[in-house]
Amino acid sequence: MNILVTGGAGFIGSHLIDLLLEKGHRVSCVDNLYLGRMENINHLSGNNNFAFHKFDVLDFKRLDKLFSETKFDVVFHLVANSDIKQSSKDTKLDLNLNFMTTYNVLEVMRLHNVKQIVFASTSAIFGETDQTITEDMGPLIPISFYGASKLAAEAYISVFVHNFGFKAWLIRFPNVIGPRATHGILFDLMHKLKKDQSALEVLGDGTQEKPYLYVTELVAGIVFVWENADEDYNYYNLGSISTITVARIVEAMLEELELSKTTKINYTGGDRGWVGDVPRFEYSLGKVNALGWNAELNSEEAIRLTVRHLQKEFGL
Amino acid sequence: MNILVTGGAGFIGSHLIDLLLEKGHRVSCVDNLYLGRMENINHLSGNNNFAFHKFDVLDFKRLDKLFSETKFDVVFHLVANSDIKQSSKDTKLDLNLNFMTTYNVLEVMRLHNVKQIVFASTSAIFGETDQTITEDMGPLIPISFYGASKLAAEAYISVFVHNFGFKAWLIRFPNVIGPRATHGILFDLMHKLKKDQSALEVLGDGTQEKPYLYVTELVAGIVFVWENADEDYNYYNLGSISTITVARIVEAMLEELELSKTTKINYTGGDRGWVGDVPRFEYSLGKVNALGWNAELNSEEAIRLTVRHLQKEFGL
Repeated sequence: MNILVTGGAGFIGSHLIDLLLEKGHRVSCVDNLYLGRMENINHLSGNNNFAFHKFDVLDFKRLDKLFSETKFDVVFHLVANSDIKQSSKDTKLDLNLNFMTTYNVLEVMRLHNVKQIVFASTSAIFGETDQTITEDMGPLIPISFYGASKLAAEAYISVFVHNFGFKAWLIRFPNVIGPRATHGILFDLMHKLKKDQSALEVLGDGTQEKPYLYVTELVAGIVFVWENADEDYNYYNLGSISTITVARIVEAMLEELELSKTTKINYTGGDRGWVGDVPRFEYSLGKVNALGWNAELNSEEAIRLTVRHLQKEFGL
Repeated sequence: MNILVTGGAGFIGSHLIDLLLEKGHRVSCVDNLYLGRMENINHLSGNNNFAFHKFDVLDFKRLDKLFSETKFDVVFHLVANSDIKQSSKDTKLDLNLNFMTTYNVLEVMRLHNVKQIVFASTSAIFGETDQTITEDMGPLIPISFYGASKLAAEAYISVFVHNFGFKAWLIRFPNVIGPRATHGILFDLMHKLKKDQSALEVLGDGTQEKPYLYVTELVAGIVFVWENADEDYNYYNLGSISTITVARIVEAMLEELELSKTTKINYTGGDRGWVGDVPRFEYSLGKVNALGWNAELNSEEAIRLTVRHLQKEFGL
C-alpha cells in the first residue's frame, strides 16, 4: 500500500515507518522537524520505498500539493505536540498541533478521496478517573490541553467517518517509552542524572501509577489493529500488561544504572507531577486482546529495557 | 451581576437576555447578526441595563477590547451555527462558529480574569445511541459537525476549569422550539405550508423521535442550573418530559392549523431527515430533576404552543 505517515520523523512515527517498510509498504513521511529529528529517519535514505517531505501539516496548500502528486491509500496521522507537560503553557499549542493538523488531514483526504485514517489518540481524553478505562466509558472530562485537543480530533474523525464514508482506526496510547524519545519521565530523569548523580529530583510524591508501553510493541499494535479491526469506526486502547508507580520506575532505573546505593531521591511532593497530569489510571485491554493482540512486556520490563537503551545515549 | 451573552440576538440568546434582565442583572449582548436578528432585541433599546455590541466573536481583538472596557462576572456563551442540517455542507463552518468562538471566549476570559462560563451544549455530542442519554454516558461518537464541534468546545471548557480555576455550567439542549426560531422542523414545515397548503413534504419516514423543549422553559432551566449547581464543572441535560415522533408533530401542527383534512402529507422516506441527523434519542433528566428543575410542558404541548405562536408570524 501507499502510506503517508504524518509526524514520521518523531519518536513513535519513525518506529512505525520502520515497521511499515519492513512489511513491504511504500511510505511517505511528512514532518516539520519541530519535535521530529532527521537522525530518526536518516537510516532510511536510499530506500526507494521511502520519501521524506519537510513541511508543516498546518500548511494546507502544501499538504494539498502532496496529495495531488501522490495517491495515498491510508494516512497514519501522528503529528502532535506530544509533550503534555508543555501544553498548559500556551493554550493554542495543542489546538494547532493536535487538533487543527487533524482537521487539515481529514479535509485534504476528503478532497482527494483518500478514505482510511489511523490516528494516535490517548488515554488523556478520559481525564481523571478511578475506574479502569474501557473504550466506551464516559464521561470524557479531559484535564490537559493534550487530552482536550485529542478528544476534539477524535470527534472530527467520527464525523468524517459518518458523513463522508471514511474508515478510521483510533488507537489510544498510554505513556510510550523506548529509543528516540524526546521527553517523558525516563528522559527527564536521565537528563538530571547526567548533570548530577548524587541526588535526583522526582516530580510529585512517587505514588502516580500508570501503564508504560514499549515503542516497538506499540507500533506493532497499531499496525495489528489497522490490519484486523474492520468496523468503519474502530477505537482501541493499547497498553502494557500492568501499571507501575513513579517510585518503582525510579528504583528500577537506578538499579539498571547501578546507582541505587549512591543517588539520593528527592520527591517534590504532591499527588501529581504538573498541572494537567493524571496521577493514576489503568487501561482495560479486553477489546484489543479479543481482537488478538497482547503486549509482551509489562510496564517494569518496558522501563528497564528503555533505561538500558538510553544508558548508552546519555553516557551513563 | 454584570453578564455577557454571546449570540444574544439569536433565538435562544434573546429569550435568555429577557429573563436575565427581568432578574435584575446588567446584560451586554454580542452578536454579529449572522443568525441573530435585531428584531429579537429591539424591544430592549432604551433599557439602561442592556448594551448591544455588533461584532464577531471570532474577532479576538474586538472581543479583547470589550473585556478591557467592561468587567464581566459571567459569560453565557451561546454563539453557534445552530442549524445542524447545514453543517455538513461546509466542514469549517461549525469548527469556526461553535468551537473557535468558544476557544476565543475562554482565552479572553482567562486574560481578563473572568472565571464563570455558562455554555450551550447539545445532545448531539453523544451521536447515535439506543440508550436513554445520561450525562456520564459513553462513548461519545458524534455524527454531525454540530455535535463534534460542541464536544470539542466542552473538552476545552473542561481544561480551562481544571487548569485555570474556571467554573463552568454546560447545559446540553435537545431540540428547542418557540417564538423567534430561524430554523428547525416547525419553521421548515410552516414555510412549506405558506407556499402550498395542499401537500406537505416531510423529510424522512416520520418515525424519528426526539424531545422538544419550549424556549422559555429552556432559558429558565439554564438560569436555574447556573444559580443552583455548585461544582466547578457542572454538566446537565435539559429536556422536556417526553419525546414525540415526526409523524405526530406533523399531525399536531396540522390540527392546530385546522389543515388536517385538506393537506396531504408526503414523506421522503428513510430513517433520518438529513446526513448527520440522529433519528431518535431520549434524555434522562434525573440529574437536573434532582437539582430541583422540571419541565412543565411535554413535547407535544411545546409543539402546539409553538405552532400557535408561529401561525400569526407566518400568516397561516
